[in-house]
Amino acid sequence: MPRPPKHRKPIIDASVTLFRRHGYGATGLNDIVEWSGAPKGSLYHYFPGGKPSIAVAAVEEAGRRVVATLETLAAETTSTGELLCAHARLLSRWMAKSGFRDGCPMTTVLLELTPADRSVNEAGRSAYDARIRILTQKLRADGFDDARATRLASLCTAALQGALIEARVRRTGKPLMIAAEELSRMLEESLRPRAPS
Amino acid sequence: MPRPPKHRKPIIDASVTLFRRHGYGATGLNDIVEWSGAPKGSLYHYFPGGKPSIAVAAVEEAGRRVVATLETLAAETTSTGELLCAHARLLSRWMAKSGFRDGCPMTTVLLELTPADRSVNEAGRSAYDARIRILTQKLRADGFDDARATRLASLCTAALQGALIEARVRRTGKPLMIAAEELSRMLEESLRPRAPS
Repeated sequence: MPRPPKHRKPIIDASVTLFRRHGYGATGLNDIVEWSGAPKGSLYHYFPGGKPSIAVAAVEEAGRRVVATLETLAAETTSTGELLCAHARLLSRWMAKSGFRDGCPMTTVLLELTPADRSVNEAGRSAYDARIRILTQKLRADGFDDARATRLASLCTAALQGALIEARVRRTGKPLMIAAEELSRMLEESLRPRAPS
Repeated sequence: MPRPPKHRKPIIDASVTLFRRHGYGATGLNDIVEWSGAPKGSLYHYFPGGKPSIAVAAVEEAGRRVVATLETLAAETTSTGELLCAHARLLSRWMAKSGFRDGCPMTTVLLELTPADRSVNEAGRSAYDARIRILTQKLRADGFDDARATRLASLCTAALQGALIEARVRRTGKPLMIAAEELSRMLEESLRPRAPS
């Protein structure tokens, strides 16, 4: 008799939480089972590929969350600079609330498992693509041409992802706010007309 | 009889290599001993605090390497933009050489152990401070005032650290080059005189 699918999502959510806090290597299957409240059998049922296949699902889920956040913020803001600052404020608040344990939900797993694990690579690439696509659209709306918008979207993604690491080490959201505010300022300066040189 | 200090450095170097490739959690003391070629006893001799104390030494060593690289590049380049592009080229080359396994020598350890481990936090903060100090000096030399130079140095550090993660996942140095080139372009634009608005 097939099990009801009700335990799949709790297992993935527990994995995202534990991987982002302690890393993939330090998280045991028993930790995931305990945190999720799912019966142990359901873990093997949904993830017959074991821990590596849970890592893929966790990266996919983390990617979906970032995309959902960015889509909401993109709709609520009038420029990429505003979007970045709003995102940095949100991340700072979440980080502070977790005692600076909840950093980027996918960075640690990506660093522990790529480039060796092809499936995790693939999930990571898709997550980056989706994230960069939203920022690219917003940068086009700001007035940047297609090629530059894509490049700036990649830079903005890297800057916030990097700042999350420093925020965790320093136990403050400041690096996030600085990165977003300085990018916002420079993006605005890039769009303003220049004096003839 | 005290052991000669000859095995300390190989143990730290092995740890930096293994932590950056596989993460702290997945690296066993036996892996470190084997990679370093040091006798097992020397590991306990130099690091009586065990694996966590090796993590601190590895983050300190990683910090020293980044600082040495940045100091060399700062002396060889005439602007922060040039420095960032030279650094990105160097990192891309190193990454490609290792099959994209050797990312940032401290990010993975920082994410796995902070903010819980105070000693690793402290080593991480010092490494960030030293790195940001060099970029701040270079940005001042470009013509930015002190406050803005410090903030931009933090942004540039975050952007390259974040781009290293994407480079690893995508198995290409492109995200690094894009981040450095776009920062370089925007820094230059920030310094140019503007048309009266």
